Amino acid sequence: MKLGVCYYPEHWPKSRWVEDAQHMRRIGIQYVRVGEFSWSTIEPTPGELHWEWLDESLDILHSEGLKVILGTPTATPPKWLVDRHPSMLAKDEAGRVRGFGSRRHYTFASLEYREECRRMVTMMAERYGHHPAVASWQTDNEYGCHDTVLSYAEADLAAFRLWLAEKYGTVEALNKAWGNVFWSMDYRSFDEIELPNLTVTEANPSHRLDFQRCCSDQVVAFNKLQVDILREHSAGRDLVHNYMGFFTAFDHHKVGQDLDVASWDSYPLGSLDKEPLYTEDEKHTYLRVGHPDAGAFHHDLYRGCGNGRLWIMEQQPGPVNWAPHNPTPADGAVRLWTWEAFSHGAELVSYFRWRQAPFGQEQMHAGLLRPDAQEAEAAKEATLVAQEVKVLAESIGLDADELMSLPSAGKVALMFDYDACWSLDIQPQSRAYRYFFWCYRMYEAMRELGLSVDIVPSNAPLDMYELLVLPAQAHITPELQNRLNSYQGVLLAGPRTGSKTETYQIPENLAPGPLASLLPLTVERVDALPEHTQPAVSGRWGAGKLKHWHEQIKTELPCLLKDDGGNPVLMGEGRHYYLGSCIDNTLLKASLAKLSEVAGLSTYYLPKGVRVRERGNVIFAFNYSSNTVVFVPQNAELVIGSKCLGAADVAIWKKQ
Amino acid sequence: MKLGVCYYPEHWPKSRWVEDAQHMRRIGIQYVRVGEFSWSTIEPTPGELHWEWLDESLDILHSEGLKVILGTPTATPPKWLVDRHPSMLAKDEAGRVRGFGSRRHYTFASLEYREECRRMVTMMAERYGHHPAVASWQTDNEYGCHDTVLSYAEADLAAFRLWLAEKYGTVEALNKAWGNVFWSMDYRSFDEIELPNLTVTEANPSHRLDFQRCCSDQVVAFNKLQVDILREHSAGRDLVHNYMGFFTAFDHHKVGQDLDVASWDSYPLGSLDKEPLYTEDEKHTYLRVGHPDAGAFHHDLYRGCGNGRLWIMEQQPGPVNWAPHNPTPADGAVRLWTWEAFSHGAELVSYFRWRQAPFGQEQMHAGLLRPDAQEAEAAKEATLVAQEVKVLAESIGLDADELMSLPSAGKVALMFDYDACWSLDIQPQSRAYRYFFWCYRMYEAMRELGLSVDIVPSNAPLDMYELLVLPAQAHITPELQNRLNSYQGVLLAGPRTGSKTETYQIPENLAPGPLASLLPLTVERVDALPEHTQPAVSGRWGAGKLKHWHEQIKTELPCLLKDDGGNPVLMGEGRHYYLGSCIDNTLLKASLAKLSEVAGLSTYYLPKGVRVRERGNVIFAFNYSSNTVVFVPQNAELVIGSKCLGAADVAIWKKQ
Amino acid sequence: MKLGVCYYPEHWPKSRWVEDAQHMRRIGIQYVRVGEFSWSTIEPTPGELHWEWLDESLDILHSEGLKVILGTPTATPPKWLVDRHPSMLAKDEAGRVRGFGSRRHYTFASLEYREECRRMVTMMAERYGHHPAVASWQTDNEYGCHDTVLSYAEADLAAFRLWLAEKYGTVEALNKAWGNVFWSMDYRSFDEIELPNLTVTEANPSHRLDFQRCCSDQVVAFNKLQVDILREHSAGRDLVHNYMGFFTAFDHHKVGQDLDVASWDSYPLGSLDKEPLYTEDEKHTYLRVGHPDAGAFHHDLYRGCGNGRLWIMEQQPGPVNWAPHNPTPADGAVRLWTWEAFSHGAELVSYFRWRQAPFGQEQMHAGLLRPDAQEAEAAKEATLVAQEVKVLAESIGLDADELMSLPSAGKVALMFDYDACWSLDIQPQSRAYRYFFWCYRMYEAMRELGLSVDIVPSNAPLDMYELLVLPAQAHITPELQNRLNSYQGVLLAGPRTGSKTETYQIPENLAPGPLASLLPLTVERVDALPEHTQPAVSGRWGAGKLKHWHEQIKTELPCLLKDDGGNPVLMGEGRHYYLGSCIDNTLLKASLAKLSEVAGLSTYYLPKGVRVRERGNVIFAFNYSSNTVVFVPQNAELVIGSKCLGAADVAIWKKQ
Repeated sequence: MKLGVCYYPEHWPKSRWVEDAQHMRRIGIQYVRVGEFSWSTIEPTPGELHWEWLDESLDILHSEGLKVILGTPTATPPKWLVDRHPSMLAKDEAGRVRGFGSRRHYTFASLEYREECRRMVTMMAERYGHHPAVASWQTDNEYGCHDTVLSYAEADLAAFRLWLAEKYGTVEALNKAWGNVFWSMDYRSFDEIELPNLTVTEANPSHRLDFQRCCSDQVVAFNKLQVDILREHSAGRDLVHNYMGFFTAFDHHKVGQDLDVASWDSYPLGSLDKEPLYTEDEKHTYLRVGHPDAGAFHHDLYRGCGNGRLWIMEQQPGPVNWAPHNPTPADGAVRLWTWEAFSHGAELVSYFRWRQAPFGQEQMHAGLLRPDAQEAEAAKEATLVAQEVKVLAESIGLDADELMSLPSAGKVALMFDYDACWSLDIQPQSRAYRYFFWCYRMYEAMRELGLSVDIVPSNAPLDMYELLVLPAQAHITPELQNRLNSYQGVLLAGPRTGSKTETYQIPENLAPGPLASLLPLTVERVDALPEHTQPAVSGRWGAGKLKHWHEQIKTELPCLLKDDGGNPVLMGEGRHYYLGSCIDNTLLKASLAKLSEVAGLSTYYLPKGVRVRERGNVIFAFNYSSNTVVFVPQNAELVIGSKCLGAADVAIWKKQ
Repeated sequence: MKLGVCYYPEHWPKSRWVEDAQHMRRIGIQYVRVGEFSWSTIEPTPGELHWEWLDESLDILHSEGLKVILGTPTATPPKWLVDRHPSMLAKDEAGRVRGFGSRRHYTFASLEYREECRRMVTMMAERYGHHPAVASWQTDNEYGCHDTVLSYAEADLAAFRLWLAEKYGTVEALNKAWGNVFWSMDYRSFDEIELPNLTVTEANPSHRLDFQRCCSDQVVAFNKLQVDILREHSAGRDLVHNYMGFFTAFDHHKVGQDLDVASWDSYPLGSLDKEPLYTEDEKHTYLRVGHPDAGAFHHDLYRGCGNGRLWIMEQQPGPVNWAPHNPTPADGAVRLWTWEAFSHGAELVSYFRWRQAPFGQEQMHAGLLRPDAQEAEAAKEATLVAQEVKVLAESIGLDADELMSLPSAGKVALMFDYDACWSLDIQPQSRAYRYFFWCYRMYEAMRELGLSVDIVPSNAPLDMYELLVLPAQAHITPELQNRLNSYQGVLLAGPRTGSKTETYQIPENLAPGPLASLLPLTVERVDALPEHTQPAVSGRWGAGKLKHWHEQIKTELPCLLKDDGGNPVLMGEGRHYYLGSCIDNTLLKASLAKLSEVAGLSTYYLPKGVRVRERGNVIFAFNYSSNTVVFVPQNAELVIGSKCLGAADVAIWKKQ
Repeated sequence: MKLGVCYYPEHWPKSRWVEDAQHMRRIGIQYVRVGEFSWSTIEPTPGELHWEWLDESLDILHSEGLKVILGTPTATPPKWLVDRHPSMLAKDEAGRVRGFGSRRHYTFASLEYREECRRMVTMMAERYGHHPAVASWQTDNEYGCHDTVLSYAEADLAAFRLWLAEKYGTVEALNKAWGNVFWSMDYRSFDEIELPNLTVTEANPSHRLDFQRCCSDQVVAFNKLQVDILREHSAGRDLVHNYMGFFTAFDHHKVGQDLDVASWDSYPLGSLDKEPLYTEDEKHTYLRVGHPDAGAFHHDLYRGCGNGRLWIMEQQPGPVNWAPHNPTPADGAVRLWTWEAFSHGAELVSYFRWRQAPFGQEQMHAGLLRPDAQEAEAAKEATLVAQEVKVLAESIGLDADELMSLPSAGKVALMFDYDACWSLDIQPQSRAYRYFFWCYRMYEAMRELGLSVDIVPSNAPLDMYELLVLPAQAHITPELQNRLNSYQGVLLAGPRTGSKTETYQIPENLAPGPLASLLPLTVERVDALPEHTQPAVSGRWGAGKLKHWHEQIKTELPCLLKDDGGNPVLMGEGRHYYLGSCIDNTLLKASLAKLSEVAGLSTYYLPKGVRVRERGNVIFAFNYSSNTVVFVPQNAELVIGSKCLGAADVAIWKKQ
């Protein structure tokens, strides 16, 4: 594992640059991300290019042996460029132009802006494509941040009409696919179709789903444009984009297919405070360390977006500035987060940012250095991790670079599908239901059992997994159906699986649609519950509470859990199981423990707040609680840390 | 009582139509509503009319002996029509156009759209006005749904200026009536007057009230246009519109005057979840059956809008899709709701919809049939009701058709006035106060006493009532004052009665304005309370809590309840009483029980969640609670059900 | 102290005017505010001036010996004027025009509207500048009410670009000052700069701060235009504007520099209900009397804006109409509020309004008279106060007019700075932090100790104070730094003091910036906490809880309070102290008591809800609680009231 940092030489006097690079080396930093917001410094006025500062900066970093991830600056086009192309601006759902003055002021669908990007990225790639410091390119920055995937401007409408024409061929086909006979929504041509905002009441869900898909495809195309240029001019460098957590507005798997590595920006405290997923109790308990599964979930998700290759491009190093509240991390938390990432396969953890900026929107966002260039707390923890990496490598007989080759895949797979996410959230039926939340809670239960989980796309190979969970795979494609038919492990399908066709209709045989061939059952009716209504459920596999979504099912399959009316909740036998309701954490854990048993997987009993991850022959343990806990795996030798883990502590064992 | 269903033949292959009609008959359905969203199927492109599908569909229904309620499709004009008349679109309060893509995309004030409606309705009326299947016409669908009564487009401004000029004659008269000298709001001509949105702070309440009245009158005129055509071409058919519950944005009494029957769309579970009227405790207790007075209140309200004739055009048959949460109804709830409607005088209960659509916005809205054409739970309950209707008819010696002639009027009247509702909600003084809520809570208290209540407009004849309640009749017209002067029953006026003039000013003699001649008192000051401040109240008629609105009154009338400062809360003697504050349910019930006694009315003691309604010589009892209860009226013979009512159960007795 | 009233003769028939004036005199009113919303009565159509009604009204008031405060009517330009200058309208943050129909429909930056104001104010000043009744002029009314300081129209953009060019000279200087290199926000000319609304995410805080300053300066300029005219034509009259409470959107100190007296509009019940500052418990406890420090805080703040001269232009006399709930005041509350104002130096308390209007937006706002011209409760309390003023004057040997000369300054100063308020609220880091709230809570603690506090601007002379508190003086100017260096009293600086430069950057030496010379410490990191996370704090000076904002500080100063990790919270010695965190009321009070001791100030022990204020040799005690309390100051003689204060009671002593 390598450490990195995000660095903005353009923010500081040149006189600091050498000292900065040397200081990075002293801490143990090996990678430096540079350039991704610097368009106005490179090109302060149209066509007047200033590369000299970047030349010099790369040379200095190179001379200190640092490798560079060079960012294309397309997330922040300068004011003059926006003034030349006002139609490049996005519009929000209320139809208002989203103007210049911060960042991400463009819509992905703007062909004019794409041309400007092509010009800039080509110049950069030509100039630095073979620079010896440049090891990697980051395209743009945090696609979709600040809700920028869905836009309702003229460029978006044009793109949408084209996209629909390509997908459906004839408007009659579209009318049928969307069920436009309902409410006289039939169109006579693609040019009659509008964007699904500012309608009197909700637009047709098929309309909304296709718009989301189209917008996602604009992101893919926008990224691909840059990828093609970079591949041409900078072959052999890793192409990467930095995704965000808890963000599902575009299909990260599709974007990932065009890149070499997936990376994401990990802010455990900010997300805990901001995400509606978490309860008040969780926010309180994990205030200074983040939720125990937030990092892990995304590491596993994005490793699956990166063909197994994962970086953390931005790792929170202290208080941030953008959450409703911004507390300081616990002592040790930065080290904990870094090792957690490594245990899930991260090749690189890069801290954001090198030095806290004294100006601009993020001036209260901590860095490894304070604004006065003194080391902040995180610098010490990063230094420690850099040393520990060497200890670990040595103790398992590898050199530090080889650590990256440790296998990171698990034996359990959870299928996460962006299209399913959009589908089910468009019509949640109960406000309490959210696709992401339900996937996260299933993942959390498995992780509390100590299972090492892969989060996989719907087109992933499945054969290597003993247990496969489909939390809510709305639409089962024929291709997926084929792979499920031949899958030899244990399969669990959750509520809403198979409940929609590709164009958002209810399948002719009702849910679970085509999956009924493996799981002979029919979802006859749905009971979509308020947050605080939690009917009892019990059966051979445990007892607990139903939550949010409860299907009324007709089946001959054996029932392992039933509701208090005796209706099936969890059913199945042999290798195929169906869970028709969301259930509470304890019962979910009990059920997954049973399924693990069926699948021949062993599980852990872990204290509250403790998590375990295995990578190759190494076992990592993390204590997210505020208590000191004892954790000792069987047949393993302690390498780093101790059997007694304090708050925010890490222990690492080598399997015997 | 007859059963009906809402049916969309255009959604299904023709090959299903005969089977559908036969299946309806088997269940006991007699009426079928058809056509109300079908404009794009009838006229897919301008002037190209496709009647053949509707011809065939009506013929099939007719051949099975089913009667048709034919809907005009004006709630869903097709896209091509909107593109021809973009000015027909409404604007929301923020000034944004409310576009195509769902339904109700028009403003009532658009003269261009009215011409299109005239064209379409005329064609339909000419073609089907004398079709043997057509027993009734429904105009448009759910006027005002999705907040479409108030619109702020150019067409609305033009209509408003005209309306004001007609009402006031001169702008000087308007200035005086509105008190425009306040804040220099005087106008020099009607053309200077704007719509009351996007002002810096709230607009003049007189301005707002007149705008609401004008918008309501646009609905009346829009409906009248269709009515006139239908009367001309389809004489003898019942004209009806389907109102919504909990909706007060236009004057339903005025619309009702032009129609033959009032109908409404009853969704007990959706409304419980969605309406801010209900407490969390009520939402929990009645999750699967709806609030015990929600159906009853609207049955009585709309029977009063329909000259005594009431239909339920859409009855919830299972989970719906549009509430924040959409649970399944309790077993028996659909039967309960149907009988409750009948007990309040409904001639027809029509379920929405025949078969659940697998596409479009409402694909998760249950029907009598599931999307796969199998019977859903509600079909069984409807079948049972159809059989029970025959049992009841037989047991009281009528044939089933004659049941409709059973008298449904009560001996108690509660006055509900849309104009008062708008007036008082424009300036509620306490956010906790809402006119509708207070009317509902007064009705609830009376219904918990087992009283059968009529809800009447302000121009209703009053002589047949022993007890008359004016919950909050803001403006007492001279005409109403005359009728109250000669009214011989017991009168109770509630807080805010007589507090405003016609143009929203405080009466010269303060509240209760002209009513002071019957109730000699003066409202000196108003104490508008927060939700959780509930001062004590007590006196000869009981003790409890004040809530929301508390008037400080000077009077010589005897005090039956006083606040803890000794000021009058409930006062009066003989036939005239005044309640100056909102009070809690228990004390309200105690007070109304006393008044019933004064009025010579007998009341019931009912277990929690149980309601009774009398119609003619039949007594209906409904158990909305989850417990089994015992209810036995005196001198009555059980006809259907038992003395022990389970959850969601119904019992019917014949008076001896 | 004198009593006044706000009066709208244009609302009533002339036949009432003499009776009104006589009635005012009977109550003891001496000042009458007139005219401030009357533009459409003066000039109903362009150029047609109607002064006769105002002539007559002033003459009647004069003949009854009443003095007039004449308001310029510029807060309510008539419709015809707006139609002539549509660009004078403001736009809200969402870009929507804020139209005619209420009041304050203009943006301060509109040069066109300023010309219209110049025309109107000149005419008025010429006509009434030397009228014998006119003692004072009020400019406009409640600048900024309804969020009208920030506007996003074309006129505002033009003004902003000009303002920036004047401030920065070159756009390069602006780019540097704002740190525009961050996110490529560099501009090439001032004409490229936009207003900071409708950006994709938050705009640069330096950008936002300068925009707020610019908008504030527009208010100053708008006011100055009127002041200059009035000074020219009406020399010797007091010029005043009526500020609002809890309102910080413009710099009241700057506006105040151009006026003779500061006045404000005091609505204790409305503000308690509406302001997010207060807890639910406070709202409940003080429902009918207002928060004990709400009036006092603003009296002291605005006395500091008025060079020591303070009026209350509008005093709540009963229920108002504009809060979420509008309860009646406790008996005695109007008297209590009036005396509280006097104890803080008010020369005049003027009730709003004379007679409750029966029409318009404020028809539910009480006056001294009811709409039917009968006296409302407040008239009785005002009459009593007028009599008590004479009693007090006599008992201390002054005539009533001389009472105004009693000194009102305290020995403690709290610095309140509008620029600091804007700075810190732009980036609060914790949603729980608000500059105003924290200042208020510090003031409250001092007042609970019985201290008489001056609230002073950052440029105030400091030498007369024994104790100086800087709650959160974000930017320490060199000039302030100099005065602090030479200040000889005890200084307490609170969290965030010195944390920003003039253009919103972090100081090079980190917080407290230049203040580190007096207080040698460094704020290393900030822990911005959620509302309900309140870590423990303790030390020599007490124990309690941290709240909202907690700085991690490095210092050698002695620690008086530490957090549970042993880090300094309150530190200092001799005359200089620094508090690095927000702390709870009890501990704040204990700390301020210690500092008072150090400063040689004596404090009171007061029962809950009781407050004391000294003015000259008079001691006032106020009971805001609902209980009867005993309060007896040492060495003082009772003049009015008793040692036993009932709810909402007042007692006044003369020091011996």
